[in-house]
Amino acid sequence: MWADLAGIGRHPGTGGYRRFAWSREDADLREWFAGEAAARGLDLVDDRAGNLWAWWGDPDRDGPGVVLGSHLDSVPDGGAFDGPLGVVSALAAVDALRARGFVPARPVGVAVFGDEEGARFGVACAGSRLITGALAPDRARALADGDGVSMAEALTRAGRDPAHLGRDDEALRRVATFVELHVEQGRGLDQLDRAVAVGTGIWPHGRWRVELPGEANHAGTTALADRRDPMIAYASAVLAARGAATWHDALATCGKVVVEPNGVNAVPSRVTAWLDARAPRADAARAVVAEVTGVVEVHGGTVTEESWTDRTVFDTALAARLAALLGDAPRLATGAGHDAGILAAAGVPTAMLFVRNPTGVSHAPAEHAERADCLAGVAALADVAADLAGAGSRP
Amino acid sequence: MWADLAGIGRHPGTGGYRRFAWSREDADLREWFAGEAAARGLDLVDDRAGNLWAWWGDPDRDGPGVVLGSHLDSVPDGGAFDGPLGVVSALAAVDALRARGFVPARPVGVAVFGDEEGARFGVACAGSRLITGALAPDRARALADGDGVSMAEALTRAGRDPAHLGRDDEALRRVATFVELHVEQGRGLDQLDRAVAVGTGIWPHGRWRVELPGEANHAGTTALADRRDPMIAYASAVLAARGAATWHDALATCGKVVVEPNGVNAVPSRVTAWLDARAPRADAARAVVAEVTGVVEVHGGTVTEESWTDRTVFDTALAARLAALLGDAPRLATGAGHDAGILAAAGVPTAMLFVRNPTGVSHAPAEHAERADCLAGVAALADVAADLAGAGSRP
Repeated sequence: MWADLAGIGRHPGTGGYRRFAWSREDADLREWFAGEAAARGLDLVDDRAGNLWAWWGDPDRDGPGVVLGSHLDSVPDGGAFDGPLGVVSALAAVDALRARGFVPARPVGVAVFGDEEGARFGVACAGSRLITGALAPDRARALADGDGVSMAEALTRAGRDPAHLGRDDEALRRVATFVELHVEQGRGLDQLDRAVAVGTGIWPHGRWRVELPGEANHAGTTALADRRDPMIAYASAVLAARGAATWHDALATCGKVVVEPNGVNAVPSRVTAWLDARAPRADAARAVVAEVTGVVEVHGGTVTEESWTDRTVFDTALAARLAALLGDAPRLATGAGHDAGILAAAGVPTAMLFVRNPTGVSHAPAEHAERADCLAGVAALADVAADLAGAGSRP
Repeated sequence: MWADLAGIGRHPGTGGYRRFAWSREDADLREWFAGEAAARGLDLVDDRAGNLWAWWGDPDRDGPGVVLGSHLDSVPDGGAFDGPLGVVSALAAVDALRARGFVPARPVGVAVFGDEEGARFGVACAGSRLITGALAPDRARALADGDGVSMAEALTRAGRDPAHLGRDDEALRRVATFVELHVEQGRGLDQLDRAVAVGTGIWPHGRWRVELPGEANHAGTTALADRRDPMIAYASAVLAARGAATWHDALATCGKVVVEPNGVNAVPSRVTAWLDARAPRADAARAVVAEVTGVVEVHGGTVTEESWTDRTVFDTALAARLAALLGDAPRLATGAGHDAGILAAAGVPTAMLFVRNPTGVSHAPAEHAERADCLAGVAALADVAADLAGAGSRP
């Protein structure tokens, strides 16, 4: 399966993946998944947000099932594992269960959530947020990418009806338990010398858009005192964010900035930037944003919340059951958002498994998991699915 | 003439001009100039760098002439006057001289220099630098724009032979005196309540490329201590530049930055930025760059000089003659580079005229000159050309 995926959306220059929601690459990835589902005789359905569900068994007839899965989209120049590892492992777990002769009592599903990274339209986990009602369809349709293309237009171009977006209780009703396997994005497992961990929860996290207006002017003739240079404001905000994050034991990142007109000898007329802030506690992340907002407002700018997800705690009994099942697997919290967190917040019993990442690098081409650890992940996922679905009788 | 120019390269969203070297818009501007020259019976020739020269009289037969002119390209979202005012005024000055029945003893030329802003390939005044030998043709051909298109490729696409680039003594030999009229880019004339000034010189100025390597990583899971985040280094460099410029009485601008991968939830792998620094004295500009370089190197980055132009003093006797001729016009130095400065540095007797800019805004759509002041500029340019060319006998 990896060989088929390796070429899709890979940038030859950076070696990173550029798989953005509702792009051509996204369509290729969906087509690949449909082929894998068909090859296994799984029934493929989509939901109102275009998330894909491949079912082994019929959840409408036999009641809600155990769903494994993750996403296939990427950040700009992302790695190969963030997302796809969970989908490939879920399909491989189905194969493993069948190879064991296992017949599930409940249906088993494999899900692919769309637009998890939010790399194109700025809202992470858009697919799971839409079907759980955490993202209003009107707001989603109006979100625009860097080229000014709205999500509604992108959906139309991808052959989907944007009017169809919205909360999808029917899709959620089919899910008894959701288990997302994901490459770890830190060095926790490496430090513990273990291959697989059970997730305990997700830090509160959000992203904010920082608008810094200025006055375009000539770099060679405008006195410093006469300038309204938003790059100075931006630099101050970046350092304020880092300082506040250090102080409050949080994470703050300024990873994206758009400068107008972006000319060497022109004072910018506008800088638009994004702040990503996370922390074990919501008040720490909020404190970072408040400090940055103070700096931005001094420079006549504004800070707008684009997304916020409060602390998510995965089902503790489920996590304990899985950890015991997996040989007393370690339990880890993460600062990264996941569709599992959105589903958990919506009341779906949810668990996560993490697979060791030797360097902890993620969202970059160097993101990696060893083959042996990936196979341990598949085995763990198969064990978990078998335990949660229960053994049924042969049909 | 303004009406024909107004639509070329104007961005409907910003109202600013995007007229970049060897682009489609550049070709349209060149075609417009060829039409204006033909309508006046001027002989159009180009030189080895593709600069255009429209001659009234034959400098090869009658000896070097008085050349008026400027450029037609723009910064991203630039104003309508920076460049075109000098070309339009030169053509209008020819019309004014003919309307007066004036016949020049020496040839009079109107020049359009290519790629003055350096907005596409990063080197300002590329056209005049090439023909004076200040820019080596090999270096010019290798310069690449933001899409990775080299100047050599751009020239080829524009139907020109890149091998033709180089020093052009023949073109320079035709120039006895060069006079560039330009909209003022500060508020000097506004403060003096005068319409036209004579330029005295150009501050030392240059641009530097700042390369800040980092390590791409996940914004939500990488501890601050584990990061190599080049955005932090960039912010420090921006504030260092502003601080040093304030201290050294210089100008420093960080107007352009390119972030990779530029994702909200990804620590950048690389930030590339540009520093523009200028000052009345070269050592002040150099001191700013040295301070920024110190900050950049602490963060593992590098600073590379892309261009440097030392202080340019225009021919002082010529400036005095023009100021006297124009009713004791004020004399102003400028922080902006111009083709006039490149020619002066190459030993061509050179002068500049500045036309009042009520707000001082330049390199932005708000750049402006009042009609009455523009007409005063044309009259001044005609007077200067008549004085320098001398009255001849009717042919």
